[in-house]
Amino acid sequence: MRVGILGTGVVGQTIGGKLVELGHDVRLGSRTATNEKGATWVAQHGSRASQGTFADAASFGEIIFNCTSGTVSLEALRSAGADHLAGKVLVDVSNPLDFSRGMPPTLSVCNTDSVGEQIQRTFPDAKVVKTLNTTNTAVMVDPAVVPGDHDLFICGNDADAKATVSELLRSFGWRTIIDLGDISASRGVEMLLPLWLRLMGTFKTATFNFHIARS
Amino acid sequence: MRVGILGTGVVGQTIGGKLVELGHDVRLGSRTATNEKGATWVAQHGSRASQGTFADAASFGEIIFNCTSGTVSLEALRSAGADHLAGKVLVDVSNPLDFSRGMPPTLSVCNTDSVGEQIQRTFPDAKVVKTLNTTNTAVMVDPAVVPGDHDLFICGNDADAKATVSELLRSFGWRTIIDLGDISASRGVEMLLPLWLRLMGTFKTATFNFHIARS
Repeated sequence: MRVGILGTGVVGQTIGGKLVELGHDVRLGSRTATNEKGATWVAQHGSRASQGTFADAASFGEIIFNCTSGTVSLEALRSAGADHLAGKVLVDVSNPLDFSRGMPPTLSVCNTDSVGEQIQRTFPDAKVVKTLNTTNTAVMVDPAVVPGDHDLFICGNDADAKATVSELLRSFGWRTIIDLGDISASRGVEMLLPLWLRLMGTFKTATFNFHIARS
Repeated sequence: MRVGILGTGVVGQTIGGKLVELGHDVRLGSRTATNEKGATWVAQHGSRASQGTFADAASFGEIIFNCTSGTVSLEALRSAGADHLAGKVLVDVSNPLDFSRGMPPTLSVCNTDSVGEQIQRTFPDAKVVKTLNTTNTAVMVDPAVVPGDHDLFICGNDADAKATVSELLRSFGWRTIIDLGDISASRGVEMLLPLWLRLMGTFKTATFNFHIARS
């Protein structure tokens, strides 16, 4: 599959690397077509890897991953272009962490709205699927680094889009993927971040994940 | 131990009932000394159970549980009286769920503050411990109703107060109690509620709980 990834940070690079490893063709996008982190990543990942602008990556992908910070995702997606997103599955991995008030970060949107919902409202022709935002990057692409049962959350308005993304997630190694329903569940998973950050501080590691125990 | 419980709703009644069962003397408090739900509860729980005003319950207790809704907790605690809370362990079980905008509820405070922090700021001489707010009432007092490993969160500024509450929680059956640090972690556990509510809708049951999987 051809995958466009918006964002050349650790999240974009890691998900992109995993997808290349699994045989997909991946283009990382950023503000500029010659982004340095993107160039290094391309050099490391062989012929299936390429880079370009946000619009280049979105145009290239049959499926798009938003791996930009949730505080700038709408801006990045506007650069990518609504036409390049229309009809496509858009996987939103972002969190609206605002570090401008100091530590711990606050959320730039929450409670009555979320980044996932904002993206779906702004790009109504994209099939937005929110997932992967509740785990550390290393865990995202290799869930087995955390021992025992643990779960991933997914939500979105389009059942087929969630099925497509779930298949990809299973190829990453995810076993339990909990479908929370429509995109408004983004609120719940994004608001998990303050607890996630606190747990990271408590355990002094990001290698953990949530599991829902039930009968 | 003498325990004062503020709130005669399901949470207050259930925690109160468990404490009586464990041999503690419990007084439920509400706005009025003759609250009907309180009277029924007292009639069902024998000589260790009593009721009164918020101030009666707070004055009676060596340890106090705030089981009022987080949207009115400060008001209830002011009625209880700062003098009756000073120097005591005050267990805050509340969530600031605001149903006035319709379903799903929003939080009346979050992101940059929390009910736990508001209570500690308003009653600086109380030793506020936030816990139990992330599980259903039935699970609170009988964690074994959820199979497998699952965890409870606790936070607060006073280590001795957390130790006292943890001992009480272990007598309820809790095995893993994760200490998230000072009372500012209330933010994280209260912001878990939107996801909790979504999970309840997904699973069609409230008999579940969070577990943190880690190495």
